[in-house]
Amino acid sequence: MNDSVFDWLDAHAEDRRKAGLTRRLNPRRPDDGLLDLAGNDYLGLTRDKRVSGAAAAAALRWGAGATGSRLVTGSTELHAELEYELARFCGFPAALVFSSGFAANLAAVTALSGKACSIVTDSGIHASLIDGCRLSRAEVAVVGHNDPAAAERALATRRTERAVVVTDTVFSVDGDLAPLPQLMAACRSHNAALIADDAHGLGVLGDGGRGAVHAAGLAGSPDVVVTVTLSKSLGAQGGAVLGPRRVIRHLVENARSFIFDTGLAPASAAAALSALNILKDEPERAQRVRDVAGELSTRLRAARLHACEPDAAVISVRAPSPEAAVQWAEDCRAAGVWVGCFRPPSVPDNISRLRLTARADLSEEDISRAVKVITETAPR
Amino acid sequence: MNDSVFDWLDAHAEDRRKAGLTRRLNPRRPDDGLLDLAGNDYLGLTRDKRVSGAAAAAALRWGAGATGSRLVTGSTELHAELEYELARFCGFPAALVFSSGFAANLAAVTALSGKACSIVTDSGIHASLIDGCRLSRAEVAVVGHNDPAAAERALATRRTERAVVVTDTVFSVDGDLAPLPQLMAACRSHNAALIADDAHGLGVLGDGGRGAVHAAGLAGSPDVVVTVTLSKSLGAQGGAVLGPRRVIRHLVENARSFIFDTGLAPASAAAALSALNILKDEPERAQRVRDVAGELSTRLRAARLHACEPDAAVISVRAPSPEAAVQWAEDCRAAGVWVGCFRPPSVPDNISRLRLTARADLSEEDISRAVKVITETAPR
Repeated sequence: MNDSVFDWLDAHAEDRRKAGLTRRLNPRRPDDGLLDLAGNDYLGLTRDKRVSGAAAAAALRWGAGATGSRLVTGSTELHAELEYELARFCGFPAALVFSSGFAANLAAVTALSGKACSIVTDSGIHASLIDGCRLSRAEVAVVGHNDPAAAERALATRRTERAVVVTDTVFSVDGDLAPLPQLMAACRSHNAALIADDAHGLGVLGDGGRGAVHAAGLAGSPDVVVTVTLSKSLGAQGGAVLGPRRVIRHLVENARSFIFDTGLAPASAAAALSALNILKDEPERAQRVRDVAGELSTRLRAARLHACEPDAAVISVRAPSPEAAVQWAEDCRAAGVWVGCFRPPSVPDNISRLRLTARADLSEEDISRAVKVITETAPR
Repeated sequence: MNDSVFDWLDAHAEDRRKAGLTRRLNPRRPDDGLLDLAGNDYLGLTRDKRVSGAAAAAALRWGAGATGSRLVTGSTELHAELEYELARFCGFPAALVFSSGFAANLAAVTALSGKACSIVTDSGIHASLIDGCRLSRAEVAVVGHNDPAAAERALATRRTERAVVVTDTVFSVDGDLAPLPQLMAACRSHNAALIADDAHGLGVLGDGGRGAVHAAGLAGSPDVVVTVTLSKSLGAQGGAVLGPRRVIRHLVENARSFIFDTGLAPASAAAALSALNILKDEPERAQRVRDVAGELSTRLRAARLHACEPDAAVISVRAPSPEAAVQWAEDCRAAGVWVGCFRPPSVPDNISRLRLTARADLSEEDISRAVKVITETAPR
């Protein structure tokens, strides 16, 4: 056997250590008592008894797994119901559920582009969309962050007949909103489709949480495809693509991350469906998460921290270095507040930051406690 | 808005229809009464009350979702326990759990290769491994199916210092076994690592179902990395990578499909852990599934069908055309037996076939009924 074949990994790890970029897993307990401003459970539904109860009931009724590809044994009536309800809620003709948002993004980008297509993307899109572009064999033009004029120029000067513009609606690091109306206008001027990842918009933005694309008046358009996750506002696991019927049919027949993957576990499909029903009944949750985010940001900026003004539920706060960001996050945690810490390569500009997420179920007391801990532990 | 931007999909769909390759989703009911020879629940555990009960209990205890990336809030003690037990069972120092086997394969191939590396692959590897190769930026040499001499030649003539050989252990379409000892010897002669996808080996092959790599005496080698799914023998959802500690640490820090994905739902992690414990206690399940596969194949061949001799749980039976395969599968289903139907592009050689999967919990009566229906509905 050969002991040395992975020696190169040690040098790689040492480089990361020196750059302050070491990452470690910290498994949590069910009852760690931390105030969670790090997860993406925006509506506070993942531990809601209706949602976790629906997951439990589905596991007992359907079994723990989907048992196969969605095209063989992995589609249950639960998946079909979730697809119908998701599409209806978000205002699209059809939807297709995947085992992750990552898989949904790979599917949408690869199956709707290809060699004969140009892709124009924002430089800040999610890693899964970037990987979709890399897999697509399309000609890819990356334009500056939130620069629809640059996107339009790229569309105008493309060499292929077909084109798609690919963007996040809410960018995951800083939580800022894409200029969807301008991007759509550029698409329509140049015969292109829009693919928008609404992972951080669903449940937070738009009428009753119908998402950023719905808020922009673009839901259900024949030239718009949206991807979402089931693992953030809907508290479960999985992802989905929403769009025209012929797009969804095309994905069923062609998307490799759909065809060659086991279907989403019934428990996760049932949980997402339950969360969606709660959101329909309690639309004020979407407004509440935006209010919480606004209040957190306002109070952090009042304390002279570099917090962004949030367009959705995500607030980033700049740190002077990767090491300082890690230390800051650790100090917060020691004081009972769990915040995210984003460092390269998870940040677009090499600036490390804390990443806070608002939740609809945070109380005023929670917010005060969070602001106090984050400001008191801030690097000088 | 632009109605015509997706018109090209209609032409594409029409081409597929003419070629007999249309695919449709057929959502199943919980109680459809079909004899299932189409799913990948090899050990019959997905509806085992211990497994589905563990999933239900975990959803209630931990919530319906993991709430974030494994690197932020998405790692629970359940994930850590599953990783520890999976690694120990399969004979590896460490393991890392992903939300799907697809994601695990993308991670292993991309993070362990890169521009400075050559990848040598079998032509029949799973789509997720192929997509990993495409994303890797490595120089990729595809060699003939189960041709270790060709793999060795490709390793010998590569232009990079580093190299990996990527293979399925059990190929998903025909269920045939890769020549693991010969591939490993080629790797060791040429300073390369082996990445083997044991999705269809875990729970079926090796001592007590420890998998094909364990059966080949290669588990725990410092130059071997194995990927598995949690959604086949273990009846849940998800995937994992098993290997040396430094490989697992490297994936935690670098694999995009790990870092930028929500963690596996607690219910799925708990179900996989429960199934693993059952397999430890009832190792005879692995032998039983192989016996069932052997009996199915023998009896189908005795009826003059072109069934392969199975190395694991999968049996493929050739059909004369895509249309005939679809009709055959539909006729079986109408007679109460659910079989898979694989057509291009899911087959390596453009030959459509039925795909049958054995299960440890099939009775002799089930086997007789399956053989009767499949032979009676066979195309003339």
